[in-house]
Amino acid sequence: MNPLENIRIVLVEPQSSGNIGSVCRVMMNMGITDLAIINPHDRHNWDEARRLSCHADTLLDARKTFQTLEEAIAECTIVAGTSARTGMYRDHAKMPRELAPIILDSAAHHKSALVFGREDTGLTNEELAICTHIINIPSSKIYQSLNLSHAVMVCCYELFLTAGSGDYHPPHERSTEATGEIRERLFKAWSHMMLETGFCKSDKLEHMMMGLRRIFNRGKLTENDTKILLGIAKQSSWVANELKNKRPR
Amino acid sequence: MNPLENIRIVLVEPQSSGNIGSVCRVMMNMGITDLAIINPHDRHNWDEARRLSCHADTLLDARKTFQTLEEAIAECTIVAGTSARTGMYRDHAKMPRELAPIILDSAAHHKSALVFGREDTGLTNEELAICTHIINIPSSKIYQSLNLSHAVMVCCYELFLTAGSGDYHPPHERSTEATGEIRERLFKAWSHMMLETGFCKSDKLEHMMMGLRRIFNRGKLTENDTKILLGIAKQSSWVANELKNKRPR
Repeated sequence: MNPLENIRIVLVEPQSSGNIGSVCRVMMNMGITDLAIINPHDRHNWDEARRLSCHADTLLDARKTFQTLEEAIAECTIVAGTSARTGMYRDHAKMPRELAPIILDSAAHHKSALVFGREDTGLTNEELAICTHIINIPSSKIYQSLNLSHAVMVCCYELFLTAGSGDYHPPHERSTEATGEIRERLFKAWSHMMLETGFCKSDKLEHMMMGLRRIFNRGKLTENDTKILLGIAKQSSWVANELKNKRPR
Repeated sequence: MNPLENIRIVLVEPQSSGNIGSVCRVMMNMGITDLAIINPHDRHNWDEARRLSCHADTLLDARKTFQTLEEAIAECTIVAGTSARTGMYRDHAKMPRELAPIILDSAAHHKSALVFGREDTGLTNEELAICTHIINIPSSKIYQSLNLSHAVMVCCYELFLTAGSGDYHPPHERSTEATGEIRERLFKAWSHMMLETGFCKSDKLEHMMMGLRRIFNRGKLTENDTKILLGIAKQSSWVANELKNKRPR
């Protein structure tokens, strides 16, 4: 089973309806779908939450509601609570990137929870005591306090990356890298062109080609790249040759 | 100089005023302060932007406005544009984590830009052509499209972590780890207590202690931890001894 399906995001008494919606979108972006809300107040604007969830409204509709944190994490093995503060009980906090493999390891077989506190006051000491692990999200000490949905984003993003989710494939060049043989054919055509167009004289050619090799080799050259560069050189050589033929002798 | 101070976040024609504010907060959370907005429309609600920027309103006030992307990146070396799509010109896109060291390397000496497109349509092909690099943020193919401020969050977070920002120090246990000598003193006290309290008989003691060693050694034990555990064992031993003395002979 995909361990991300075993991750429950728990929001403890979130105050902002918009944040709840944003959290839904972030979760779905990162392949996580199980949302639990602890003790939501009765003034929530669920239309606002739906608007900010965008295409993740199914996840909003499927949310579970609990009266207490204990109930929400009853079936969970790892319970990782987030805290912006350090000190007192929080010295053993870990960064999301450190905890991600630990959480996923457990989530391969058991439900695991990530717990996020109130926007203003976070989690209480009693709630942190229920957590098996504490997460501290790296941030600038100039302004440490992250918006709720951005805190969820960082944690879910680290889990998604660590899970190496089968459903994400980083883009990759379709064209294969050029081999030495192809590269040398390219450089030969450019040498020829530089002489033919009169860009440089033969005594400066070697020096110029060293510069050109450095430019073209700095990034990886694909076969498609070399086709384009080869075509440019050949065309300029052809133009130079045409010109030569048309000049009065 | 701190390379993060050389990073410019460029928003191309953002539609939502709230998103602009959220982006300010996210930037300040991650120690990045230079915001440029390309061609903002004239219906922006700057009060809404200010509300969502929270304590990053100074950053909102200091934003620069440009008519075109060319102007905003004129002084930048690396210009990394984000794109959710792949294919056509985007095959060489890289993940934020891959690009972060490349961007910071350049930002140590030059201004570098991260460019984010419109909420609905992203960056045009013409705008992507101006970029030296393309960033693709990993996301679930079920729902790929990230909210603007969350896309900025992921990119800034990776830069902040890679920069190893001097102003963030991960929490660490203040108490040092317990040495073998201290651990063995602890286990001896627990063996004694388990016998004294009658929890087990001496023929089962070794077996029990193996289990207990496994439990206590699973996580790292600090000196403070051993003091607590030692105290518990000694107290129980004392209670067991008191009881023995009070029993009728």
